[in-house]
Amino acid sequence: MLNQEIVRKFYDIVEKENVVIDEASLLAYSYDSTPQYQAMPDAVISPRNTQEVADIVSVCNQYKIPIVPRGSGTNLCAGTTPTNGGIVLLFKHMNQILEIDEENLTITVQPGVFTKEINDRVQEVGLFYPPDPGSMHISQIGGNISENSGGLRGLKYGVTRDYVMGLEVVLANGDIIRTGGKLAKDVAGYDLTRLIVGSEGTLGIITEATLKLIPKPETKKTMLALYSDLESAAESVSAIIANRIIPATLEFLDQATLKVVEDFAKIGLPTEAKAVLLIEQDGAPEIVERDMKKIAKLCRENGAFDVSVAKTEKEAEELTAARRTALSALSRLKPTTILEDATVPRSEIANMVRSITEIADKYQLTICTFGHAGDGNLHPTCLTDARHQEEIERVDKAFAEIFEKAIELGGTITGEHGVGVMKLPYLHLKVGKAGIDVMRQIKKALDPNNILNPGKIFVQEPKVESRVSEQ
Amino acid sequence: MLNQEIVRKFYDIVEKENVVIDEASLLAYSYDSTPQYQAMPDAVISPRNTQEVADIVSVCNQYKIPIVPRGSGTNLCAGTTPTNGGIVLLFKHMNQILEIDEENLTITVQPGVFTKEINDRVQEVGLFYPPDPGSMHISQIGGNISENSGGLRGLKYGVTRDYVMGLEVVLANGDIIRTGGKLAKDVAGYDLTRLIVGSEGTLGIITEATLKLIPKPETKKTMLALYSDLESAAESVSAIIANRIIPATLEFLDQATLKVVEDFAKIGLPTEAKAVLLIEQDGAPEIVERDMKKIAKLCRENGAFDVSVAKTEKEAEELTAARRTALSALSRLKPTTILEDATVPRSEIANMVRSITEIADKYQLTICTFGHAGDGNLHPTCLTDARHQEEIERVDKAFAEIFEKAIELGGTITGEHGVGVMKLPYLHLKVGKAGIDVMRQIKKALDPNNILNPGKIFVQEPKVESRVSEQ
Repeated sequence: MLNQEIVRKFYDIVEKENVVIDEASLLAYSYDSTPQYQAMPDAVISPRNTQEVADIVSVCNQYKIPIVPRGSGTNLCAGTTPTNGGIVLLFKHMNQILEIDEENLTITVQPGVFTKEINDRVQEVGLFYPPDPGSMHISQIGGNISENSGGLRGLKYGVTRDYVMGLEVVLANGDIIRTGGKLAKDVAGYDLTRLIVGSEGTLGIITEATLKLIPKPETKKTMLALYSDLESAAESVSAIIANRIIPATLEFLDQATLKVVEDFAKIGLPTEAKAVLLIEQDGAPEIVERDMKKIAKLCRENGAFDVSVAKTEKEAEELTAARRTALSALSRLKPTTILEDATVPRSEIANMVRSITEIADKYQLTICTFGHAGDGNLHPTCLTDARHQEEIERVDKAFAEIFEKAIELGGTITGEHGVGVMKLPYLHLKVGKAGIDVMRQIKKALDPNNILNPGKIFVQEPKVESRVSEQ
Repeated sequence: MLNQEIVRKFYDIVEKENVVIDEASLLAYSYDSTPQYQAMPDAVISPRNTQEVADIVSVCNQYKIPIVPRGSGTNLCAGTTPTNGGIVLLFKHMNQILEIDEENLTITVQPGVFTKEINDRVQEVGLFYPPDPGSMHISQIGGNISENSGGLRGLKYGVTRDYVMGLEVVLANGDIIRTGGKLAKDVAGYDLTRLIVGSEGTLGIITEATLKLIPKPETKKTMLALYSDLESAAESVSAIIANRIIPATLEFLDQATLKVVEDFAKIGLPTEAKAVLLIEQDGAPEIVERDMKKIAKLCRENGAFDVSVAKTEKEAEELTAARRTALSALSRLKPTTILEDATVPRSEIANMVRSITEIADKYQLTICTFGHAGDGNLHPTCLTDARHQEEIERVDKAFAEIFEKAIELGGTITGEHGVGVMKLPYLHLKVGKAGIDVMRQIKKALDPNNILNPGKIFVQEPKVESRVSEQ
């Protein structure tokens, strides 16, 4: 609970209408898209400019009040759940595209702009912003940057990090810094831009971003390859890369996911297949044509029983859209859907998918798997019910084993969702005790009062017990 | 001076033959490729593996002895000058390519591998490591990573940072951490990989790196466009990008540089031109052909009085090689060559080059300018004589103005050379006092005894006076 004195300070900064403190309204900000996590904030504040953000942060720093910056709350790691109470910061007033610079190929935006809007606007002038997280229709760019969001185009085009050229950031002490700029090359000191990207709001609050754009690919083709076993699909992925072709998208769906998606989207997907690859290539027409022919041949040679290229743009869009519905489609089946993003080197996909199936069997759980085969980023998705305590315990154990397996195969506990609260107990598996120590030291140096999204990524003090003890 | 007890500890770790302490041998490590900076180390040590590095660091941390990790010393910011004495660490025993992984498109190397060797080896299997700093024939990859080296291909392919996927790093406390991996996507905590890249050896010592590779472009073409004025060259650059073409290389040389290079390389360069663009495109043959035609047309439309595409591979190589000799060629003219790398947004190149000329006139100096026009990374190069104190003072003033101008145009004080000692007095111009504070706090958190390459990037304690006072 915030006392009246503090609330009055916030009124002074942003005006009363931009401070929400009634319980009913706060409830909507007590959770994000991550099941099983909820905590009430004390206030929701909507600043109108960078200076107001800085002023809010200064008050919070003075009174040691937690601040959770929040976009649309589409994250899947409980990254914006206000676990320690405090302020949720919204960017509904800071939602402008400030500039599209066609000469330097950049776009400068405020944090509250929707990712989709960036995509649409730059395409109008023949440019392209590649990162396309699953939630891009409703996610905000500030959230994308804070989580270093991935998407379907990671293999060829990289992730959000690869497109952030400069940031304006409010630090815990209220200082405003500007990092990077419209510069392809800049080595003036530590790379603070990329330290902030993916830091989940724990090191600073992003108030402006300059993003890199590239020329829009001239054309795109989409293909579906069907398999009667998983290995053949994985071998096809390896064969494509071994032939030095990098498709724009290389998505994998297992049969369980495929059935659910078809039931949802009803576009005639081949539910008899045990595994499916959805492959897109973009670029100059002659190259796309050539690559797609080669890819089709490689898929057939590696055991695809059917390969079909979408004949029209509409058909292609339906296929990609169907893939994008996977999470929504799966969510309809059971009360609780837990979507994970264990990620492995591309060469280990078949091993990983096989292990997920074994672990699901062992714990008698329904786990569907789909994801970005091209970059090894899989989404094992457990259909369960949070009210069944005993089943949820089995789910926890199963995912712990899945993460351990991913690490064993040279992978990571999270490819694109972030750590947040959800993966916090597993971070040591990837970065070790020494790695966590480094992160803690950086956090402590930049946010000594631990006000910026506290309780995320790691526990602030090593003593505090986490769900899985550190090794 | 190290006392006998400490020297004996180093003997125990790496054996006597890998510890150099005689003055004559140490002299060679008292400077790097940066003119005007020199300081003697107390010892030069060549560890044979990561554990030995960790043991050396632990001793240094205990006795507060500075450590300067050094590759080939090709850096241009005095980044490896042992300004505070202590140990210079060499990687001559840690110079192995550990693995080329053709399935995951990665190469794993020790820090002492030459950049050129990486390039050559991966090309043998049809792969490509794009970063190509000017010194790549003799530079080591550990140094490239520590300085986040750029090169001629930055516009299309990015810089070293964009290819570092994972690192093994020894921290100041002797801990060994592993960051990232063979993973296109990994958001497990803060991005320590990219915090280490470009940190100039001040946060940790790189002992292993996993680098991203891409398929080798099928073909390449090289073109020379000649101009009778600077503006037309700059407008051509803008026009190429505005037409959504991203060449692999887009180099600019002014007449002064051109004359010197021709005098050195003698390949019949057109010294009558006031400005030259050297343009390369790579990729699929049909695309390269198409792009080169378009580029030639755009150059002519924007005032090039001659445009010629290299007819043979040999001719193309001669052109690029000639460009690469620019620094060596310029170095022959005067005793001291000061090469800078003020960088601006691409759209400001003409403004920047014009300002450099004006500043050179104002201080009566000879400054030739060449550089990477595609990414705004210019190399104003002053031909001078370090023994003439009065002239050097004018050089200092001129470069201070050049850096200020770069910042005014939205640029940076260093695009690819790093800060080191040389740019330390100017860092505040780019990142501000608050930005330097953040860097200091990170440094202090990770290296409390200030043993890792001390005196570089910024002064450790804000009190110490620097050449230009902070604003």
